[in-house]
Amino acid sequence: MDVLQVNFVGSSDGEWNVTTIHTLCGETLAPVAAISRFVDSAPMLQLDDWMLRSFTSNLRYTTASEARRLAERQQGLGRPASAHAALIPIRKTADWWALPQDERRAIYEERSRHTSIGMDYLPRIARKLHHCRDLGEPFDFLTWFEFAPEDSAAFDELVGRLRETEEWDYIDREIDIRLVHAG
Amino acid sequence: MDVLQVNFVGSSDGEWNVTTIHTLCGETLAPVAAISRFVDSAPMLQLDDWMLRSFTSNLRYTTASEARRLAERQQGLGRPASAHAALIPIRKTADWWALPQDERRAIYEERSRHTSIGMDYLPRIARKLHHCRDLGEPFDFLTWFEFAPEDSAAFDELVGRLRETEEWDYIDREIDIRLVHAG
Repeated sequence: MDVLQVNFVGSSDGEWNVTTIHTLCGETLAPVAAISRFVDSAPMLQLDDWMLRSFTSNLRYTTASEARRLAERQQGLGRPASAHAALIPIRKTADWWALPQDERRAIYEERSRHTSIGMDYLPRIARKLHHCRDLGEPFDFLTWFEFAPEDSAAFDELVGRLRETEEWDYIDREIDIRLVHAG
Repeated sequence: MDVLQVNFVGSSDGEWNVTTIHTLCGETLAPVAAISRFVDSAPMLQLDDWMLRSFTSNLRYTTASEARRLAERQQGLGRPASAHAALIPIRKTADWWALPQDERRAIYEERSRHTSIGMDYLPRIARKLHHCRDLGEPFDFLTWFEFAPEDSAAFDELVGRLRETEEWDYIDREIDIRLVHAG
């Protein structure tokens, strides 16, 4: 539950090579060849680089029983077999943020099954949520996923299911960036 | 629900004159003569000034019915009669932040009645919550209160009731700074 400042930098080279950038809605991001993740640090930016700032934080919707089930199933980032990754920056609408906590929770889980859908793909698809709205950044969340190449179809299915939910009616900017480890 | 970056600056002079600084638990703050609030901006700091960075954000625990009752009763900051203010920086324990959302909500409202207690003092005591844990700041929250001089005893009662709750068992740093408008 520690707060980490995590900066995602798009550049001409880096830790993860970009394979595709797919803009699902809203403005796109400038194309880059690679993305790197900087924890509690930031590099000097070169011309044409971009940086998205974010932080990890406490759980915002997860209940005690959900947290227990997640902890039983999930494995961390950085597994040697996880040669594929995805960075999905999203922004939610002003309507979403004006909702009180109980209504956001009801849309997020009781009606959209966000946690439950993600759990169907554990431990294969590792996921880490980063917050950025409170920093005044252009996105609200940067979600980072890691998985083995053979789980790419499962990952497509996971994001496809989420995008059909009521929660996604509140998303007005989404970019799906697929990556392969530069190892 | 807009995110505003709000910086509280302690200095030798400013918008609000400090009358008392009372450290209830944890490390104190360096004494200053005045505090000013900077929204989406920050001044050049002088020697011995300090700055606490924070942001306003969406509601984290408030339900729809609570939000409706608050909206009916509350008035904004900056009322001409509100010549007194208080800035109360607090930090919560690692145990608090490790709790899932439903357990934090239960302690916050079902057991500690945080929102309900505050509502008893509306519209007299205006309150604005600022978040700072996610910025890596030394406090987790900066709460700002404004009230008329004749409501000072009511304000003492309000903070006294909150400090007796179960929620306050999770607070390990708290400083109560009382202010009078310099105007």
